Amino acid sequence: MTSRSLSDYPLGGYLEALRSSTPLVHCITNYVAMNSTANILLAAGASPAMLHAVEEVADFTAIAGALSINIGTISSTWADAMLVAAKTAHLQDIPWVLDPVAVGATRFRQTLCAELLTYQPTVIRGNASEILALGGLAGQGRGVDATASTQDAFTGAIALAQRHGCVVAMTGLEDFVTNGHHHYRLTGGHALMPKVTTLGCGLSALVAGFVASNRERPFEASIAALACFALAGSRAGEHATGPGSFQVALLDALYQLTPNDLSTFAQLEAVHAV
Amino acid sequence: MTSRSLSDYPLGGYLEALRSSTPLVHCITNYVAMNSTANILLAAGASPAMLHAVEEVADFTAIAGALSINIGTISSTWADAMLVAAKTAHLQDIPWVLDPVAVGATRFRQTLCAELLTYQPTVIRGNASEILALGGLAGQGRGVDATASTQDAFTGAIALAQRHGCVVAMTGLEDFVTNGHHHYRLTGGHALMPKVTTLGCGLSALVAGFVASNRERPFEASIAALACFALAGSRAGEHATGPGSFQVALLDALYQLTPNDLSTFAQLEAVHAV
Amino acid sequence: MTSRSLSDYPLGGYLEALRSSTPLVHCITNYVAMNSTANILLAAGASPAMLHAVEEVADFTAIAGALSINIGTISSTWADAMLVAAKTAHLQDIPWVLDPVAVGATRFRQTLCAELLTYQPTVIRGNASEILALGGLAGQGRGVDATASTQDAFTGAIALAQRHGCVVAMTGLEDFVTNGHHHYRLTGGHALMPKVTTLGCGLSALVAGFVASNRERPFEASIAALACFALAGSRAGEHATGPGSFQVALLDALYQLTPNDLSTFAQLEAVHAV
Repeated sequence: MTSRSLSDYPLGGYLEALRSSTPLVHCITNYVAMNSTANILLAAGASPAMLHAVEEVADFTAIAGALSINIGTISSTWADAMLVAAKTAHLQDIPWVLDPVAVGATRFRQTLCAELLTYQPTVIRGNASEILALGGLAGQGRGVDATASTQDAFTGAIALAQRHGCVVAMTGLEDFVTNGHHHYRLTGGHALMPKVTTLGCGLSALVAGFVASNRERPFEASIAALACFALAGSRAGEHATGPGSFQVALLDALYQLTPNDLSTFAQLEAVHAV
Repeated sequence: MTSRSLSDYPLGGYLEALRSSTPLVHCITNYVAMNSTANILLAAGASPAMLHAVEEVADFTAIAGALSINIGTISSTWADAMLVAAKTAHLQDIPWVLDPVAVGATRFRQTLCAELLTYQPTVIRGNASEILALGGLAGQGRGVDATASTQDAFTGAIALAQRHGCVVAMTGLEDFVTNGHHHYRLTGGHALMPKVTTLGCGLSALVAGFVASNRERPFEASIAALACFALAGSRAGEHATGPGSFQVALLDALYQLTPNDLSTFAQLEAVHAV
Repeated sequence: MTSRSLSDYPLGGYLEALRSSTPLVHCITNYVAMNSTANILLAAGASPAMLHAVEEVADFTAIAGALSINIGTISSTWADAMLVAAKTAHLQDIPWVLDPVAVGATRFRQTLCAELLTYQPTVIRGNASEILALGGLAGQGRGVDATASTQDAFTGAIALAQRHGCVVAMTGLEDFVTNGHHHYRLTGGHALMPKVTTLGCGLSALVAGFVASNRERPFEASIAALACFALAGSRAGEHATGPGSFQVALLDALYQLTPNDLSTFAQLEAVHAV
């Protein structure tokens, strides 16, 4: 696969599919990210729902277009609900995204992620530290910040994708998306993005939305979601004077972004050798 | 009651009462809505407090001007606290508002709402799907989005208000407020409002604030709260370029809104036949 | 200590230290404040991490630069985690900040704060009502609002600092910082600050960040954090048209603030007699 073959089906088509289907994205995410994640999904064109009670997650995941699980502020009861939801998604063939926040930081997170991985996520979205930690390769990230360079983690991402038969979307200064066989690099975004909290968490949910609306092509849908975010980030950065105005502008930019913008301006290239 | 008789006591008077009494609104609400709800209350002129521990909710509800319960991200422990708080409000004659988020989506929500209703909320605020689901009439909403038209739900709202002896404030493209005997329609707002998360949740808490400050007139106070929100929404939309800037502008507009603005520009009309 | 002696080591130096060390601040804070606190830390130059599971807090506090505990939306399980984290900080000599939100409002809060105080916080940050309630002196605050005047609470703050051997940072219309022996008053800020929720909570975490980066001088570091916030607040207020735009502008101002700005424009003076 090359960037030419990806563009045979224009990238904007994935955004068009998102907007026309307004998929219901069941988010079990961290407290910090909930509000901004919901707003990111709404601005882009999806329909968010946040709920996590073990009494109802299975019922709800079953009616969702996709599930997005982010372990940022886990506790044991939330972990139980995540496992029930992931299992439901797995059994009912509902696509789901895992965001393994700070998985390298504590054993509690490692254990939970190992269990979640048995339910075969459709996509794993994380920064380089998290992807490396999840692969058990290296890089004990101290928290949600990326401390390994994206470039160094390409090999780890590909190995993780191959082992779990999923898409790995690794984000950072530049993004890298692989299904274990084909790989794309994306650039764009803006230097203020790491200065706004939980944008990565919101992006994971947005990937879930794109995958829900493009069920047959989770790899391309993930690329489209990341390209969408990077392009909106670039535009938001043009007028922002700091992280406060950037966050506001990012939501406006996601809302204003057209499928044609995405097809025309997304910065991605196929990676043939790693 | 007609719009003329409502305006015998000008709508702005309810906002004036809110601002002069800065009522303490005890909110037990969902994680997604907490921050934006607190900011909506502060901008309008009330004083928010979010707390939910079963060890302290009864103590706190007892000193609050009103209670607002929103079931968005419930779990069993939160449900217990909601029941304790609602019971306290009921026994101590403290007005309280129920926001039955996505009540149609799972049995867990239906069971909790049925129990909460035994403590006689002063006001129920929801979208058409939720109002219909709460009445057991129809409309299994898939989440927080409204999927039934507001118009279709008028009858359901009136029946619900009559059955529980409360005010029902149903919001959507246009709003409908009924106490079972008198009914008002409100217009205004802006197309970007559904693109910002938890505005409805914040509105429920704002209704609680208005009712706290206008104890003798919960019906009119609810209308005033909705009119306030719709008017601020219209103004916010004038300059917003997307949902990010809209949310910022909405808080500014709520803060700037004067009682006289409300009396002069609110768009409401009595409904005589449904 | 006088303002002259404080400025022998320019205030901006503390901000410089924060930015160069980007300390990891472990926040166990309330749901309302989480997102805005993370954004305040990021904008100023620190690195936030929010996590609270009793299974992992000890592991995480041990690798953090500082811990910030805010009891705003406590429950019994969160209280347990706070105690474990505070104990860890105490035993491992990691600075920590206590924000005793609404401690006067319920017995549940008073009991928890009494236990937390046994682990000797480095800094207590609260409004006048909270500082007085914590000292068992007077002032049953009804919630997060300050109802006692800052001036009246000076004596209480000094007594609290002396009893616990810590810094007390009391904020309100004007701020007062004491280590029990030396005292500073700070002015600045903006009238819109109380109209935005959880700014005080975010400030507590920012104090933790400054203390983490200036381990030998927690008193001066606390003053620097408050001065930073007040100065950013003043600047944000220059163009804000309400609490929505103010909050956005505050994050931008924190991000733009330079060490030299802080040394030059901070408004503080030593208090020699109380």
